[in-house]
Amino acid sequence: MTAPLRTGLAALAALSLATAPLAAQTSGGSTYDAADPMIGTGGEGHTFPGAVAPFGMIQLSPDTDTTCEIRKCYGHAAGYRYEDPTIQGFSMTHFSGAGHSDLGDFLIQPLVGDATSLEPGAQRARFDHATEQARPGYYAVTLADSGVRAEMTAGTRVGVQRYTFPAGKDARLLLDLRSSLYSYPGKTLWSSIRVRADGTITGMRETRGWAPARKLYFAIRPSAPLTRHAFSNTEEKVAYNGFQGPGRGAADPAQLQGRALVAQFGFGVLDRPLEVKVAISAVDEDGAIANLDSERGDFDAIRADTGRAWERALGAVELEGPAPMKRMVATALYHSLIAPSVFSDADGRWRGPDDQVHAATGFTFHSTFSLWDTFRAEHPLLVLLQPERRNADFVQSLVASQQVSPFGILPVWQFHGRETWTMIGYHAVPVIADAYLKGIRGFDAQAALDAMVKSATYGPYGGLDQYMKLGYVPIDREPEAASKTVEYAYDDWTIARMAGAMGKADVAAAFGKRAGNWRNSFDAKTGFLRARKADGSYRTPFDPTAINYGSDYTEGNAWQYSWFVPQDQAGMFALLGGDAAAVNKLDAMFDFDNSKLDYSHAEDIAGLIGQYIHGNEPSHHVAYLYAYAGQPWRTQERLKQIVESQYKPTPDGLSGNDDLGQMSAWLVFTALGFYPVAPGSNEYVIGRPFLDRATLNLPNGKRFTVIADGLSEANPYVGKVTLNGRPLARGYLRHEEIVAGGELRFAMRATPNKGWATARAARPYSMSTAR
Amino acid sequence: MTAPLRTGLAALAALSLATAPLAAQTSGGSTYDAADPMIGTGGEGHTFPGAVAPFGMIQLSPDTDTTCEIRKCYGHAAGYRYEDPTIQGFSMTHFSGAGHSDLGDFLIQPLVGDATSLEPGAQRARFDHATEQARPGYYAVTLADSGVRAEMTAGTRVGVQRYTFPAGKDARLLLDLRSSLYSYPGKTLWSSIRVRADGTITGMRETRGWAPARKLYFAIRPSAPLTRHAFSNTEEKVAYNGFQGPGRGAADPAQLQGRALVAQFGFGVLDRPLEVKVAISAVDEDGAIANLDSERGDFDAIRADTGRAWERALGAVELEGPAPMKRMVATALYHSLIAPSVFSDADGRWRGPDDQVHAATGFTFHSTFSLWDTFRAEHPLLVLLQPERRNADFVQSLVASQQVSPFGILPVWQFHGRETWTMIGYHAVPVIADAYLKGIRGFDAQAALDAMVKSATYGPYGGLDQYMKLGYVPIDREPEAASKTVEYAYDDWTIARMAGAMGKADVAAAFGKRAGNWRNSFDAKTGFLRARKADGSYRTPFDPTAINYGSDYTEGNAWQYSWFVPQDQAGMFALLGGDAAAVNKLDAMFDFDNSKLDYSHAEDIAGLIGQYIHGNEPSHHVAYLYAYAGQPWRTQERLKQIVESQYKPTPDGLSGNDDLGQMSAWLVFTALGFYPVAPGSNEYVIGRPFLDRATLNLPNGKRFTVIADGLSEANPYVGKVTLNGRPLARGYLRHEEIVAGGELRFAMRATPNKGWATARAARPYSMSTAR
Repeated sequence: MTAPLRTGLAALAALSLATAPLAAQTSGGSTYDAADPMIGTGGEGHTFPGAVAPFGMIQLSPDTDTTCEIRKCYGHAAGYRYEDPTIQGFSMTHFSGAGHSDLGDFLIQPLVGDATSLEPGAQRARFDHATEQARPGYYAVTLADSGVRAEMTAGTRVGVQRYTFPAGKDARLLLDLRSSLYSYPGKTLWSSIRVRADGTITGMRETRGWAPARKLYFAIRPSAPLTRHAFSNTEEKVAYNGFQGPGRGAADPAQLQGRALVAQFGFGVLDRPLEVKVAISAVDEDGAIANLDSERGDFDAIRADTGRAWERALGAVELEGPAPMKRMVATALYHSLIAPSVFSDADGRWRGPDDQVHAATGFTFHSTFSLWDTFRAEHPLLVLLQPERRNADFVQSLVASQQVSPFGILPVWQFHGRETWTMIGYHAVPVIADAYLKGIRGFDAQAALDAMVKSATYGPYGGLDQYMKLGYVPIDREPEAASKTVEYAYDDWTIARMAGAMGKADVAAAFGKRAGNWRNSFDAKTGFLRARKADGSYRTPFDPTAINYGSDYTEGNAWQYSWFVPQDQAGMFALLGGDAAAVNKLDAMFDFDNSKLDYSHAEDIAGLIGQYIHGNEPSHHVAYLYAYAGQPWRTQERLKQIVESQYKPTPDGLSGNDDLGQMSAWLVFTALGFYPVAPGSNEYVIGRPFLDRATLNLPNGKRFTVIADGLSEANPYVGKVTLNGRPLARGYLRHEEIVAGGELRFAMRATPNKGWATARAARPYSMSTAR
Repeated sequence: MTAPLRTGLAALAALSLATAPLAAQTSGGSTYDAADPMIGTGGEGHTFPGAVAPFGMIQLSPDTDTTCEIRKCYGHAAGYRYEDPTIQGFSMTHFSGAGHSDLGDFLIQPLVGDATSLEPGAQRARFDHATEQARPGYYAVTLADSGVRAEMTAGTRVGVQRYTFPAGKDARLLLDLRSSLYSYPGKTLWSSIRVRADGTITGMRETRGWAPARKLYFAIRPSAPLTRHAFSNTEEKVAYNGFQGPGRGAADPAQLQGRALVAQFGFGVLDRPLEVKVAISAVDEDGAIANLDSERGDFDAIRADTGRAWERALGAVELEGPAPMKRMVATALYHSLIAPSVFSDADGRWRGPDDQVHAATGFTFHSTFSLWDTFRAEHPLLVLLQPERRNADFVQSLVASQQVSPFGILPVWQFHGRETWTMIGYHAVPVIADAYLKGIRGFDAQAALDAMVKSATYGPYGGLDQYMKLGYVPIDREPEAASKTVEYAYDDWTIARMAGAMGKADVAAAFGKRAGNWRNSFDAKTGFLRARKADGSYRTPFDPTAINYGSDYTEGNAWQYSWFVPQDQAGMFALLGGDAAAVNKLDAMFDFDNSKLDYSHAEDIAGLIGQYIHGNEPSHHVAYLYAYAGQPWRTQERLKQIVESQYKPTPDGLSGNDDLGQMSAWLVFTALGFYPVAPGSNEYVIGRPFLDRATLNLPNGKRFTVIADGLSEANPYVGKVTLNGRPLARGYLRHEEIVAGGELRFAMRATPNKGWATARAARPYSMSTAR
């Protein structure tokens, strides 16, 4: 697509300057206060505005549209689009920023009056954004047609709705088991619903969506007794070889099963708001009920608990700076603390990629691993900010999944315990290696390394058999071969790094060798990564600007992928002809005239700056590569260009899918002034800060403060850098320097400092000879 | 239908007289030796010839046709029809004699050579009955096209196939996950298959068939290593929002999921037969693997174990008599020992009517309860012949099902843990009451009684709300109202009987009163049970010969149902006008000229003798009612007429569906000379024996022998009866008299003894004033 450059930050900077002095803007207000869940709910962000606890199992959020067809509802991946005029209901499960979709499980809509059409979506209610309130862990809106005030909150394993009905009106709920995100005929394989003797409503749904056969059970407990209920199956004329149960012909059997169920519940006229507590489980109805019971308390109690949990989680980074930037970064941090999500039941049971139920012993199983995205900055951010136990949970969840995988490999893109085979690579590998190398323990490292090696040597997956034989993935055997080759090589390097740290010299040697495989697909003559055929020749014709499904690259082209050698940027620059040639090529990428290009056929291609595509992940580290080439001031310039054009503190404030926190984690790191270009290196490349002051409250109790003296629109360049008062000559931080606590101070200025961090020894991993 | 009277027994009696003297025919041969699983596999029997252990979870049997449509494959309810020329494969699960169907799970066919069409049923192989061998626990056949010798055996939770491939031919297996009995588009909701690292093949299938959503997992372990495999999904052009896993495009991924899967396994050229061990589980794949491992040993070992188990189980009744009769009765006993089937996994887990997994503690969960059929004679036979533990397992399984039922009621027609809502009544109630009253313990009687009361008072089921209000089920509110009224009243009586025995006087009184409700639907003016409307009027027009779905009666008409008052036959006879009128009406039923009637539109209406329909259950006790009217010799005549016309020792030897053993249990009891007309009364009405001698080896170690002195075609009448040497003047036995052990001796003769058991005091329950 011909993506218009975003000018949001500049616009807002102007706005904020017009309304209040800088000091007033930066004073007061916690990160929690500054976070705004509406950011990303329009435009390309695909985030949801609803209620979720940090890493919570339930994402209770309004769905404005669920009935779109495959490939036509890309924009509704999170159920809610800011520009939509109506809400269909509130469902329990949502992805935060995914490019593909599913979920939207168990849509509930409050209704008043008697008449109900059971046409899908007929219960739509208009709403006005003025009535909306979105806070971490809380969402509210007034449904204009019914006059119902709808409030949502969520604990780790429960969602609670509170509906205030107009006085004197019969309170009703509609539960539509047909509704889901990315819905299409045949998606629901089976569903059931029943009212239990104690008034708890339980049931399940099995769908074939993004996950091939996903079972999800629910338990719903309203605060008022049911006065009546009606279950309907709207699927007509189905060949069905069974008999009707009790209440045949009646609308109120105790149970109904089928593929198109709608339930209606009546509560009569209530003299107080109706609270509806919901839990889910992938295991069984008992699991959902136990999850429901695992978090006691009413709406207000759970809202308060979750509010405190968000204050704690977001308090990991204290922010000072211009209000719009603070809001953007606080929200980015919020978005980075949603997934991977808790997914085991309160009793530890979880359903795995084998569709079987397992017990998590000594850890909490998490799922929703968007690994191709999140290995880059999202997981490194969580390693830095979240307790060791949470990160160990991630690793244990990945390894436990591998151990029960029908293929014996680590997750590729997993949610709700199910593998989706989305995107490429075996990027659970760098996630585990990065955590291990940064000192995260609490998991069986040998089992993890075994899982990593198995994943990297499983021949049937993604051309790995050919990769192991030829040293590259041949395009005539496997699509997207060029991207796969370089990503495999990087993943291999992280195995070597971890194996080396563990003293496994043989594994380290074998995968260290494989880490060089990127060279086998890099065409020094054209200066691009290119797909090769099994006979060794490069595939022709070659167009470095082409973006197509099943092409040589994955959601991108040669411009973006040629830069993906985090483990050996030095080697790649050498092939290009040296640092100057690398800078020239970087400039050529950013300054590319894309006015003649049309990428509207491809999803996820948004946020273009020339051939740099910030809306998708392969570009995310590229601006930092100027620093590798000895020109950190060019990185600083590009970062300003990207932040100003790609982020805004508004609903359409994300230029691309947030991808389960990766777009946001990029902003959090970048705003702090450093970024993990090569997870596994334990280094963070220094860019430039975008906040006056930021303090990391680290899990070990230490504080690490970043100060940007003189930061302003007029002072976009880094002059001097000190770490704990001493000048820092190099262009990167070491992980241990951050976790030790301390102060990183930038002196910002109007002109580039072309003398800082330019020597090879001062440059980041693979460029420096210092290690 | 205009059913031709069967003349099998008479024909075979003639045959046997022609071939060997009686003494030679009756000598030697255990009941095990005499049992012939081919009986019932043609005609109306719906039994299967394959391998099953007593009450075994696996019924491993050939399927001759699985692709028929609903309502067109009634005859293939057990997968195999004797008259079919080809076998499609061998599947693990089958009903024994059901009128409706499902199952046929996990069809495997051995193949040779390379070419395979994946068209459903394309793997059909011709076969010749001469190559078949069917024994309890063993079945073999030679597939003519491939030359493969196929042998089947089964343990309690495993099935083992042994395939001997022609020398030098590549051995292959096809596993068709699309195939099932009563198959139709959309029946398979989902399925999956994978090859595990150790070579075990596991997977699952979820179907919406007779049971609304039934999950079944499998584990398959071949004795030879796989040399290759191919998984195919034959469903084309399905809207599906997922991505392909490893091996995309390849036929040999490690796993495949979908709705139309076929797997092929290659083993190369083998130098010994291929054994294929299979287990199933409703819980998960681990459950199936554990079940597989729960019975060690190869084909021959398991065949020997199961053979011994059948010798023990069938040894409960030693038989002497003409070979054809011995074969029929031995086979009937065999068929009565197949269901209810073990269904919990080896570790005790089972999936219940709530589709959730539960643990059986202290009992083995059994399922496949065809209760409308089996409460009559099948369960009473098992109470008599099977160990207390087995019967207590049945009761515990029923009560455990009630406790997790979404409706809180006992099973109606349950298989694989799932409720099907087939037929009417709450006949788990008499099964439990009969067991309890006959001294079966080992279950929580109070919990059982609670379950019975809940089932009898659950308003939404089958018009029970109206029944409780009006004292009958009104036909303008609920179909088949007349049948329901009388069956509910009988079930209520058994609750009263059990409650009385437990000292629960209030429950006994309440249900004792309900036991009289049959009167509210009995029209003394016409002498028929008739359906009434809610306003009290009888529905008109009234045709006592009409049989229709949704009519006043269930698979029958007023002729059959008017006799169903086992708890108060005396009261019913009084309404008819006394004993003589009752005998006249019985004769009118048996002697009815049905040549003008056509019942071909109704399933399960077979085996007609006038308006007596032996092929379906409502008639089963009717011949014994002459004895209630003081004319036991007329019962003796009718029994001869029925046995000779309704049973043959040939594949088409059952005149109606065996109905999970009820048709067979009728013959076992009848051949012994007594029958449980009113389960709950602890009485057996004496008919006439059909064997020279039969000895019951009772679970308590006692022996009860029945001797028929002078039995022959010429001596069809009972002259004198002695029990333990003393004359027995009454026309019924008490349960305690049998379990005490002893000898019941009949002196058979050519003419009726019109002086025996005619006094009211000598007649069975409700006629005698002696109790």
